[in-house]
This record gives sequence, C-alpha cells and structure tokens, in this order.
Amino acid sequence: MSVEQVVIIGSGPAGWTAAIYAARANLEPLCLIGVPRTNPAPVLPGGQLMLTTDVENYPGFPEGISGPDMMQHFQSQAERFGTRIKGVDVVKCDFSSRPFQLTCSDGETIEAASVIIATGATANWVGLDNELRLATSGGGVSACAVCDGALPLFRDKPLAVIGGGDSAMEEASYLTKFASIVHVIHRRDSFRASKVMQTRVLEADNTTVHWNKQLVDVLGEDLISGIELEDTVTGDRSTLEVSGLFVAIGHTPATAFLDGSGVELDAAGYVLLQGESSHTNIEGVYAAGDVADATYRQAVSAAGMGCKAALDAERWLAEHA
Amino acid sequence: MSVEQVVIIGSGPAGWTAAIYAARANLEPLCLIGVPRTNPAPVLPGGQLMLTTDVENYPGFPEGISGPDMMQHFQSQAERFGTRIKGVDVVKCDFSSRPFQLTCSDGETIEAASVIIATGATANWVGLDNELRLATSGGGVSACAVCDGALPLFRDKPLAVIGGGDSAMEEASYLTKFASIVHVIHRRDSFRASKVMQTRVLEADNTTVHWNKQLVDVLGEDLISGIELEDTVTGDRSTLEVSGLFVAIGHTPATAFLDGSGVELDAAGYVLLQGESSHTNIEGVYAAGDVADATYRQAVSAAGMGCKAALDAERWLAEHA
Repeated sequence: MSVEQVVIIGSGPAGWTAAIYAARANLEPLCLIGVPRTNPAPVLPGGQLMLTTDVENYPGFPEGISGPDMMQHFQSQAERFGTRIKGVDVVKCDFSSRPFQLTCSDGETIEAASVIIATGATANWVGLDNELRLATSGGGVSACAVCDGALPLFRDKPLAVIGGGDSAMEEASYLTKFASIVHVIHRRDSFRASKVMQTRVLEADNTTVHWNKQLVDVLGEDLISGIELEDTVTGDRSTLEVSGLFVAIGHTPATAFLDGSGVELDAAGYVLLQGESSHTNIEGVYAAGDVADATYRQAVSAAGMGCKAALDAERWLAEHA
Repeated sequence: MSVEQVVIIGSGPAGWTAAIYAARANLEPLCLIGVPRTNPAPVLPGGQLMLTTDVENYPGFPEGISGPDMMQHFQSQAERFGTRIKGVDVVKCDFSSRPFQLTCSDGETIEAASVIIATGATANWVGLDNELRLATSGGGVSACAVCDGALPLFRDKPLAVIGGGDSAMEEASYLTKFASIVHVIHRRDSFRASKVMQTRVLEADNTTVHWNKQLVDVLGEDLISGIELEDTVTGDRSTLEVSGLFVAIGHTPATAFLDGSGVELDAAGYVLLQGESSHTNIEGVYAAGDVADATYRQAVSAAGMGCKAALDAERWLAEHA
C-alpha cells in the first residue's frame, strides 16, 4: 500500500477547493467524498449546497447557479487536475504515528502523509417531515438567512424564525431588512442570546416574539404557506401564516469521526485552527470550511479556507518530505 | 450629504465579494474602484487579475476563465444587488470621529458609517520594459508560481526565479514540480531566506542557483525565450535560455492612503486583523484580501475574506445603528 501525500475528507466547497489547489501542486490528492445519508436529514457528497436551489452570493455567477451545478463545476475542476475520488466516509483517524491511518466505512485503511479535514457541518432541524421536505426542495424553509433571505420569494412577506440563541437573533435581525414582519418562535419564556442581540430583536419595529411556542407542523404543498405551533405551557395549538421559515437552532459540525484522534475541538465540536492559518494542533493535519467555522459558514469563505489548507499542506510536505 | 452605511475601497475579488454580500444585506454599498495607473507597472480597477490571462484555480470554472472576464462577473453580480460604483482613489482617511471621512482623488469627501479596505497589493517588479510587457500579456513572466506554475506553457521547461527571500525559495521549490530545471537568480552571494527554505532549494536536484547576478533584460517577442543577466561583481553579461520567469522580490500592499489614519499595519505595511475575523483595530473598519494577507494571496482566499468583512460590517452596523 502506498502512502497518499494528501487525503481530503469531505466534498463541499472547502474540500473541492483544497483538491483543486493540491492537484495543481502535483500532489495527486485523494478526496474521500462520503456516503449519502438520509436520516435524520439528507446529507450528500457535495455538502449542504446539494440541497440548495439557488446560490446567488457565490462570486462569479451573476445570474446565480444551483447548488448541485456549482458543486459539479468544483468537482470537474478538481478532477481535471488529477484529483482521485472515493465514495467512503472516514470512521476513525489515527494521527499518533506517521504516516497517518484513516479507517474508512468500507473497512479499508488509507495511509496519508497529510490530511485536510473538510467534512462541514449540518444545520439542526426540528425534524418534521414537512419541514425537511420543503427545506430540500426550495419550498421556503431554510437554515441560513444570509444565504437565502434576499431571495425574491421572501421580499415583503411574513417570515418566521425558530430559536432563542445568538444565531436566531442574528437571523431575525437580518430578515427584518426584507420581511413585512418577522415572527420569532421560541419554546421557552426567555432567550439565551446575549443581551445586545436580544435587544435588537425585542426593540425592532417589524418583529414579534412568540414565547413558549414550539413548531409542530409546516403547511403548504410546493411552497410554505404557514406553520402550526403548540404552546409549551397550555398545549394550545395555533396557526401562523408565513411565506418563509428559518430554522436557527444551531449546527452540528461533522467531527464525530475525530473522537480519540487528538485533534483539538472547541466546546461545540468545531475543529480549532491556529491563528489565521488552516493548521490544527497536529502537524500535517489541516481543516477548512464549516467544520472549523461557526461564524461565517458561506460557500466562498469555505472555499477560501480550502485553498489555504492545500497551500499549508503543500508547504509542510515540501519541508518534511 | 448623506452618510454611506458601507464604503468598500478596492475592486478585486475581496472588494467585489464584500459588495455582493453587503448589497444582499440591503446596505447599498458604495464601491470606490480606483483610478487606472500605468507607472511603474499597470494597476487597474479590478486588481491584479485584470493582468491575468488564464485563471485555472478559482473554483467554479473547470475550463478556466480570463482574469478580466472573472472580474466582470464579480462586478455584474455586485451591481445586480444594488452596489454603486465610483471611479476614484481614496487619498486620505479620517477614522478619528464618526461618521468616518474619506477624501477622494477627485477632491470630494465621503462620509461612511463603516469602511471595508480591500485595496490589495501589487507584485514588485525589477522594472524592465520587456519584463512588464511579457508579464501583462501572458508571455511567460509571472509574479505567482502557485497561480501560474501549473500552466502547460511551463511544463518540463527551464524556468527562472528572481529573488533571495522566503517567497523566492517557495516559488522555486513549487516550480520544481513542473520545470525541467529551475534557475534561481540572486543579486547577492547569500539568501536572506530562512535556513529550512534555503536548504530545500540548495539541495533540490533540478535547481541551480546563480549568485551575484541581476536581471538586465528579458528576451522574446510574444513568449519569453531567455533572460539576460549581469554579474554584480564583475559586470560580465550572460544569457540563460528559459521558458518562464517568476519574479519573487516581494509585494507592496496598497496602504499608503492609510498613513495617519490609526489603522494598525504590520512592519511590511499589511493591515493587521483581529484573530480570524476581518476587524481592524478600529471598530467599524474592516479589511479583506491581499492588503491584509501576505501569505496566501489567492483570488478565492481574498473573496472569502471579502465575504467575512461584509458580514462583520453588517453585524456591527446592526448593533450600533
């Protein structure tokens, strides 16, 4: 078995960009693109953009592009320069000796001189069938206001945000730019968001907070027409007409496979990077994209991180080969 | 005079991406794209990519795209969402009181609640007519091995690198992947690069160092065919046949207009950022792209930084408006 120079784990914007740069540096990267899953929500090779109908903010496509088309372009470009692809997940990493050992979901072990972790994160959903159906079909259910809030679909319409943390406050505040009214739905009687973020939401003109309410159904066939809520104190049910639903109850970075690997994660499970670089705490192991970014989570910021990871890996390999 | 919410200074990948994100956040950004210059080397609105024939590593364009076409796409996308454009340079910034005051090259003063600095950097050139002519026409003279080294033009050909610092060592080392031989031309008798970087170059099989030599001319009509060198000790002239020339004598960030503004720069003149964010030391002033990145300098990494700057500015404005 030969030792791979660079193995990239993941196939979203960060992973493919790392592959493009590593391939152009003649490192013949191997990209492990993952295995499709559907439970609890769909997770596909290509990442979150595979479930995105219209991408309007990735620079270079003034008319917009569909998420799957965009990821196909990224993949073709990586393959053009010699990236090899394998449809497996990594289930275990041993970074304690060199070469590193990656155990894959097909039982095989891959040896690698350097590894780029680009497994992304997934939005947390409430878990309702209609919520997931409309989220994956461009039906007006989203987990990213910055990505989708400006779509014509949502302009001057009533919108709802689910959640009570900083992200939910940010999503709500952002959506007030577009919505006729923003309904914030929270299952408790107070927010856990920071004071300043709460104030922005509570004092906004076109925002209404619905305390002690939880989402029990999403209404509408092709497009969302409303949401059904249940009062967490009284059990009463009510319906709210909305043209968009933004679920902001956190993200889960895909780092479970790093358990026991020694890679440092933060309290929420995101990979910790050293300064502005892509270096993890282990030399030769790099991370890029949403798996290491709880703040920006955009396709182009993830792609930029993928570029940095490949350049960091290339420089490290040149010095240690 | 009304106060602008966000003024973006610069129009490369970082500036346009910041504009796309700020415009989609309904901030109606004003982008100051600069005034074309030709002396000593051409500097155009759109940045360094305006002088780049083939961009093969910006993700999303598997067949490659010309630099000017790419920047036109970026600009169209920013304009589509409401970015306004002005063809001026900023000559002076007053960040000491709010709103900020930007003095422009046409004499006008613009007031801004927040500012994103994305003025980029320019490669330093030796300054020879034939060098600049071939650099701006895709004739085989480049200032970026990572960008251009993998082009078919340079495969298995003799290449030359000018310089003696860490960047020159990195460029030389990177080019050994593609070149038949790499000639490193340095005007002194020792490198100022770090020991480990020097060793990589001095010990490489297909690399030859030419000490005490300076570049006095670049030969070739449409494509470079060779370089003329002068010995800095003896004054003797010699010619070297090469199919590519990589000038690696540093970059100059475009930060002269920040003199006296209070924005913190590093020793080389790059804008200093706070952690992984785009925040400068002044609240409400952000930076993105090569003006704040001496390490990666890629279109996609600059674009990622532009996205972060716009999101940081948007959040700051929402909390302080």
